Amino acid sequence: MTLSPEQKAEIEAARATPRPTLRAVAEGMEAHLYTAHEVLDHGFVRVIDYMGDDSAIVQAARVSYGAGTKHVSNDEGLIRYLMRHWHSTPFEMCEIKLHVKLPVFVARQWIRHRTANVNEYSARYSILDREFYIPAPEALAAQSTVNNQGRGAVLEGQEAARVLEILKGDATRSYDHYEEMLSQEGQQGLARELARMNLPANVYTQWYWKTDLHNLFHFLRLRADAHAQYEIRVYAEEICRLVADWVPLAYRAFEDYRMGGATLSSKAIDCVRRMLKGEEVTQETSGMSKGEWREFQQLLE
Amino acid sequence: MTLSPEQKAEIEAARATPRPTLRAVAEGMEAHLYTAHEVLDHGFVRVIDYMGDDSAIVQAARVSYGAGTKHVSNDEGLIRYLMRHWHSTPFEMCEIKLHVKLPVFVARQWIRHRTANVNEYSARYSILDREFYIPAPEALAAQSTVNNQGRGAVLEGQEAARVLEILKGDATRSYDHYEEMLSQEGQQGLARELARMNLPANVYTQWYWKTDLHNLFHFLRLRADAHAQYEIRVYAEEICRLVADWVPLAYRAFEDYRMGGATLSSKAIDCVRRMLKGEEVTQETSGMSKGEWREFQQLLE
Amino acid sequence: MTLSPEQKAEIEAARATPRPTLRAVAEGMEAHLYTAHEVLDHGFVRVIDYMGDDSAIVQAARVSYGAGTKHVSNDEGLIRYLMRHWHSTPFEMCEIKLHVKLPVFVARQWIRHRTANVNEYSARYSILDREFYIPAPEALAAQSTVNNQGRGAVLEGQEAARVLEILKGDATRSYDHYEEMLSQEGQQGLARELARMNLPANVYTQWYWKTDLHNLFHFLRLRADAHAQYEIRVYAEEICRLVADWVPLAYRAFEDYRMGGATLSSKAIDCVRRMLKGEEVTQETSGMSKGEWREFQQLLE
Amino acid sequence: MTLSPEQKAEIEAARATPRPTLRAVAEGMEAHLYTAHEVLDHGFVRVIDYMGDDSAIVQAARVSYGAGTKHVSNDEGLIRYLMRHWHSTPFEMCEIKLHVKLPVFVARQWIRHRTANVNEYSARYSILDREFYIPAPEALAAQSTVNNQGRGAVLEGQEAARVLEILKGDATRSYDHYEEMLSQEGQQGLARELARMNLPANVYTQWYWKTDLHNLFHFLRLRADAHAQYEIRVYAEEICRLVADWVPLAYRAFEDYRMGGATLSSKAIDCVRRMLKGEEVTQETSGMSKGEWREFQQLLE
Repeated sequence: MTLSPEQKAEIEAARATPRPTLRAVAEGMEAHLYTAHEVLDHGFVRVIDYMGDDSAIVQAARVSYGAGTKHVSNDEGLIRYLMRHWHSTPFEMCEIKLHVKLPVFVARQWIRHRTANVNEYSARYSILDREFYIPAPEALAAQSTVNNQGRGAVLEGQEAARVLEILKGDATRSYDHYEEMLSQEGQQGLARELARMNLPANVYTQWYWKTDLHNLFHFLRLRADAHAQYEIRVYAEEICRLVADWVPLAYRAFEDYRMGGATLSSKAIDCVRRMLKGEEVTQETSGMSKGEWREFQQLLE
Repeated sequence: MTLSPEQKAEIEAARATPRPTLRAVAEGMEAHLYTAHEVLDHGFVRVIDYMGDDSAIVQAARVSYGAGTKHVSNDEGLIRYLMRHWHSTPFEMCEIKLHVKLPVFVARQWIRHRTANVNEYSARYSILDREFYIPAPEALAAQSTVNNQGRGAVLEGQEAARVLEILKGDATRSYDHYEEMLSQEGQQGLARELARMNLPANVYTQWYWKTDLHNLFHFLRLRADAHAQYEIRVYAEEICRLVADWVPLAYRAFEDYRMGGATLSSKAIDCVRRMLKGEEVTQETSGMSKGEWREFQQLLE
Repeated sequence: MTLSPEQKAEIEAARATPRPTLRAVAEGMEAHLYTAHEVLDHGFVRVIDYMGDDSAIVQAARVSYGAGTKHVSNDEGLIRYLMRHWHSTPFEMCEIKLHVKLPVFVARQWIRHRTANVNEYSARYSILDREFYIPAPEALAAQSTVNNQGRGAVLEGQEAARVLEILKGDATRSYDHYEEMLSQEGQQGLARELARMNLPANVYTQWYWKTDLHNLFHFLRLRADAHAQYEIRVYAEEICRLVADWVPLAYRAFEDYRMGGATLSSKAIDCVRRMLKGEEVTQETSGMSKGEWREFQQLLE
Repeated sequence: MTLSPEQKAEIEAARATPRPTLRAVAEGMEAHLYTAHEVLDHGFVRVIDYMGDDSAIVQAARVSYGAGTKHVSNDEGLIRYLMRHWHSTPFEMCEIKLHVKLPVFVARQWIRHRTANVNEYSARYSILDREFYIPAPEALAAQSTVNNQGRGAVLEGQEAARVLEILKGDATRSYDHYEEMLSQEGQQGLARELARMNLPANVYTQWYWKTDLHNLFHFLRLRADAHAQYEIRVYAEEICRLVADWVPLAYRAFEDYRMGGATLSSKAIDCVRRMLKGEEVTQETSGMSKGEWREFQQLLE
């Protein structure tokens, strides 16, 4: 990872000067502030700011439910109740702001989560750095033969070597040409907003990304999931670790109900009931399609 | 205003215990934290939390524009540039969370601003307090005769007295009946979610309301405007004072470009050009409708 | 229900004049267009416009997945797959616009669903009609003794009579006073934006409400649920019937996966697995709280 | 532009079969439905569906304002009033769904408009076509020397030839390598979700994009503006022509107040007033910065 010396100095300075505040402070998050957590070969995630903590969630719920919630004396119990019953607004009371450096093809997936605020580095305005994502050998996967959207075995030997050679060679050549087209030595130089179109989707970009905890959980559920593309999943997993230190009670509830949970259809619930009564249920008698039945079987194993 | 002794004690405790943080701290906002600023007869606005300051706006803009913005060495100049050219994303990097107590008819206007997070006191769950907005004599306005949506002169004498008597009497009676229907003495007691339907729109509710600075400015432009209903405008004006202490540079730019600014149509711009060249322009030669011309004349006076 | 003769004539006229279009047409929805479906004592829901049908969902999915989805030759299978795997964007391609007349306390719950477009009748601008929701005898429920947010048995005899008398009396008196304050006979007349504050929360309002199918399903899941307040649930149930005629395949998938489905926590899934292996699991050995275990038991019965 | 024969046949079939509907029909838009309007070298915009017309805007406004708006007997006057006073909700009642084919670097700007629904062709799932944007000679602009974010003179002679050679050569080589890596002949073949990272930002993608008229106007104001990048501006301009045929009254108001209009700061308004009274105002006496004064001067010329 390549934070410049200036960036490192800036981080050091910020971390050296705590100031007093009357706001809610999450100790676990203070320890992460500004520190760049490395992801992939040149990427990182770092927390720039946050608002609220587990207590802020509880406090917002108690505003809504008034004296009524006082019998749930336990903060963790209340947070689990909110998560279980899809009460999203108290989680929206927490906010996080991240600085993320990531390949463009990952950024294109990420931005589809619309309920967030984004300031991205502008390649119309500035010149991108010569940094490209080149997969580590263990991430160099073949196309899955069973899932159009998935990966199969890791490539090996000659084929792996050839792929890496192509990716590195094309990235280098594209960037050389990018610089050549931009150059103002002996020529006018192509507009930056045009020259960038020659750069491949594994070039790195960076942005500030700010969202609330409810929407962050939604992002994490989809992107830290086993079916997400590996290159975005590693970012999501890194953010999961940060969130676990920020709002530990909410994160545990999220893990239990969302990451580890599953939604059953009415047909599937009916099957479970019948099976618990001792009935032998098969795909044919389940009312489910083959694909659905397969997923249901996997869940119960 | 009626903060309970418990609420006051809670505020005192929160204000007494600053803790160290590495996050951006806005001194001007720290001074307001938790303090209830009175609005109308029983309402208030108080800041529960905030994220970011003027520097956070500048920092986000510099991420987007990279080294390119360094020639605008001046933070205020950059913020004014962003505001002038409708660059909204850097302002979205700041966030504020307010606790507001307000009459229901004001809450109904306020909630129409959808880009915010809200936790409102639930009258399904809990029992509302006996608190109603009764206008001060100077706010007791007649229907405007020229504007369907506006106010005319202040009511006086008998008519004013009669209105106040009605509002107070109906509020009292409605609340007495609300309590009677809820009562479980010698009867089952009506469900809270039903009993509340008897309460008039001037009963007070409260909520936590969280939004980003860009959307807050949009709210303030519409609701602190002279055409907004007085009862929501006083909330907006109170929030303006808080924002001026939180992000003074951004607030000054907002005042100049949004609150004090005006949007001219292409026809109006054309008229200004002709007038500056010495032409006598009238409504007939302006291409504008009568209503538009009247608004244009008011702007130039 | 009280559509005015003018409104009825307008509906008749609109229904009498089909025009040719090249857009997707849902026959089931055309039959409902403009017709007011009665809800509660004075409310209604009527469809003003719609965009898309089941095919539009399929078509959008096939744009995303390209040739890859061709092996799911079956439209219903594809729609069920999308619903099961929380692919929301194809459902967002359908849109509906409703005209709804509803009591203000229902409108206050409804508006909390932010991802929708709303034009509400303005009581600043115009005068509200003398129409109030008075519960039918079977909807006059006592406060639940076990659920702070729920209803118990239906009120009977004297208590029921007393409640109805209060609700009717206060509504009548409030509206009489509203008219008195507005009156310009022999006085100036209070501003409409002020006079309305005297009206109770069971007065009817109306709005145009437009949303996409994904967000509509989210609304329906929460508001057609058995835990929703009866007075909003009857609106949601009416809309369910309309949607079933509009996008029958999507609606059936929604019923199976959302309305009839349930989300299990990782703890609950673990219990199901153990129970299917023959283990006797109790609340104590389940790892769940008492409340959670009770909900889990109810699901399996 | 390259619609496949299958796509063309599908369009022909759709255009050949009008069906009766009771919904609002915009004749001007029916004429455009499904037809692909060419943009850039391989891109297009085509209307897939729409909801509402000018009357739907008026109708929604009249719901909000009730009988009150009847004195604005004129639909165009009402629409202009709504636009002038930033009443956005009536415009949200119209919706449009477009199928767009566009280079990835344009898609990256476009997607920043968050209030829209999108289904994009998935390069995880399917294989992208060999189609790249190569600028026409007159679009091959040099970097602006005065504006970090703009274009200067058109490149000529040798430099232009060299740039085109690079862009074409790198696109061809990248795509050849993309196919080589994907190939399953004599090797496993790299996963599609990885292979795509080698493709440059001028490769074409496509999506369904659906938004309401208010948000579409916001998009068009920013992207059809002279400061927008040429390659997205041509899409916005094409959409402007479609909207002009769909909602002609709303479009004319948009042109006058938004596209041709301008927002003046309170300082600028003050200067105009002083100038109209005959005062000679200079940058020094204006209270504006140099940049602001320059923009102000340009507006008045």
